[in-house]
Amino acid sequence: MNAIGVDVGGTKIAAGVVTPEGRILREVRYPSSGPPEVLLENIVRAIREVGRGVDGVAAVCLAVPGLLVSAEDRVAFSPNLRTIENIPLRKALEPEIGLPLTIENDANAAAWGEFRFGAGSEVDHLLCVTLGTGVGGGVISHGVLLRGAQGAGGELGHVTVHATGPRCACGNRGCLEAMCSGTAIARYARVVAAKRPESALGRLAVRRRIIGEDVTELARRGDRAALSVLEEAGTWLGIGLAGFVNVFNPEVVAVGGAVSVAGELLLAPARREIALRARPPSRDLVRVKVATLGPESGVLGAAALARDPESGEYVFGGG
Amino acid sequence: MNAIGVDVGGTKIAAGVVTPEGRILREVRYPSSGPPEVLLENIVRAIREVGRGVDGVAAVCLAVPGLLVSAEDRVAFSPNLRTIENIPLRKALEPEIGLPLTIENDANAAAWGEFRFGAGSEVDHLLCVTLGTGVGGGVISHGVLLRGAQGAGGELGHVTVHATGPRCACGNRGCLEAMCSGTAIARYARVVAAKRPESALGRLAVRRRIIGEDVTELARRGDRAALSVLEEAGTWLGIGLAGFVNVFNPEVVAVGGAVSVAGELLLAPARREIALRARPPSRDLVRVKVATLGPESGVLGAAALARDPESGEYVFGGG
Repeated sequence: MNAIGVDVGGTKIAAGVVTPEGRILREVRYPSSGPPEVLLENIVRAIREVGRGVDGVAAVCLAVPGLLVSAEDRVAFSPNLRTIENIPLRKALEPEIGLPLTIENDANAAAWGEFRFGAGSEVDHLLCVTLGTGVGGGVISHGVLLRGAQGAGGELGHVTVHATGPRCACGNRGCLEAMCSGTAIARYARVVAAKRPESALGRLAVRRRIIGEDVTELARRGDRAALSVLEEAGTWLGIGLAGFVNVFNPEVVAVGGAVSVAGELLLAPARREIALRARPPSRDLVRVKVATLGPESGVLGAAALARDPESGEYVFGGG
Repeated sequence: MNAIGVDVGGTKIAAGVVTPEGRILREVRYPSSGPPEVLLENIVRAIREVGRGVDGVAAVCLAVPGLLVSAEDRVAFSPNLRTIENIPLRKALEPEIGLPLTIENDANAAAWGEFRFGAGSEVDHLLCVTLGTGVGGGVISHGVLLRGAQGAGGELGHVTVHATGPRCACGNRGCLEAMCSGTAIARYARVVAAKRPESALGRLAVRRRIIGEDVTELARRGDRAALSVLEEAGTWLGIGLAGFVNVFNPEVVAVGGAVSVAGELLLAPARREIALRARPPSRDLVRVKVATLGPESGVLGAAALARDPESGEYVFGGG
């Protein structure tokens, strides 16, 4: 049986019909903007449209951004999509779509996607970090998605790595997110650009506001100022990952999200910190690599988390 | 059926016959000093002696300090008991004791003890931190002990909370262990004593070298210098715990080990940091409390991790 995975983000809703082998048969996108009623309407529309005329869809899973309270199927806090907060999503949506619906956190769904179909498909212990505007996380341990007591678990981005560090979007200081997200990279870049006006990064900063993508672009062309920015972000990423390696003893750490296009420029300093800070045997086992599913990890992972309402098992099987 | 739990520490071997309800029927202690042969001999002796004449012992579990490689039943690294390193323990011991033997990490066993019989006996998501000379950790998530790929998981003490902080026994800098263990507390105390010679702590420091226990003792009597030391350690403990709360979304965090006798003097500042740094709903759910089993958690938890060799299940049941 197939399943529909829906990935609700800050700007768009992506819904896909997925086969148990992880092939997306069809996909549609809707905007996620507008008031709550419109958001819910567009989610229903996306599911109906993508499922129309496709046989054998057993269930749907909706991956939502923010902190989930699973027992109530609602998002307690979602900084990038405030309109989704505190709606009992299953109750509101299930009758409209006529299919069994499960709600999951988006970063956890993306991790599950990598576990079933991507960078972690051959292991039982996977850690996924998604570097974008923020830093998302998901952990699979012993083949089981770590949801925590309320479904709010896996928030790897909000672990303090620098107690007196810069303010994070969550209100805390020095979270991993505040130290290696796209936002943090842009912040480092502006500081470095001001110090090194002769660099390519410095010259660009005079013309316009630097964003994360600029840094990767210039670093690839060999600009040393831009390279030092990725080095800084990668170092902090590695400081965070080293702790997770000690805690989870994972086989693979997959780094995804828009920032991960920087690839080795970011991962090499991260690996160096892991080598320095993590302990054997965990340190020697773990492989740190770029996630392989790209932006489809959310839709794929959500589909693989859709459940058969009778057995309670995933439609695609697995823990 | 009963099981024997053996807790091997830096100075002693404690072996107990435990009932499925968590009652210790009999317990013996042997020293863990001496060369590897003597250590192994004393482990065998302890198990034979404690099990003598007791009916219905189904299996044994040995809880060992240090970083385990489960597949090889050996400890890769054990700073407090070097003599146990790299011995294939099951192969060496099982024939001698004539009972099925499992090997587990000591902090994971202590956490499992609290989960089955102590501070976490009513929850499915428990985090255990043991504050002694070092900082041990154990995590139960969805009712399952988090062992990681090699059995080396759960090392909560070796997560970096202060990237440029003091050197940890593991070689890294600013691990949670380096910031809130008994060793860290003694280090803070010596600094504070030097700055405040008029305090009770300062006066004691002139007479002899301060140890962790002195600090709790003096803090209880109201010495403000000693109180500020526990405040510092509790704050760092809370910085670490806040991250774990976001990652694991646990119902209970149990703080055990010799340092935990400081109780609220340590836990109050830790809770304050969690309130500041962790996110809802996890922040609002979690209860931080002192572990309830005391030094017996290792023996109790080990017994509850002993396995029936035929079914592979725990003799006492559970995940």
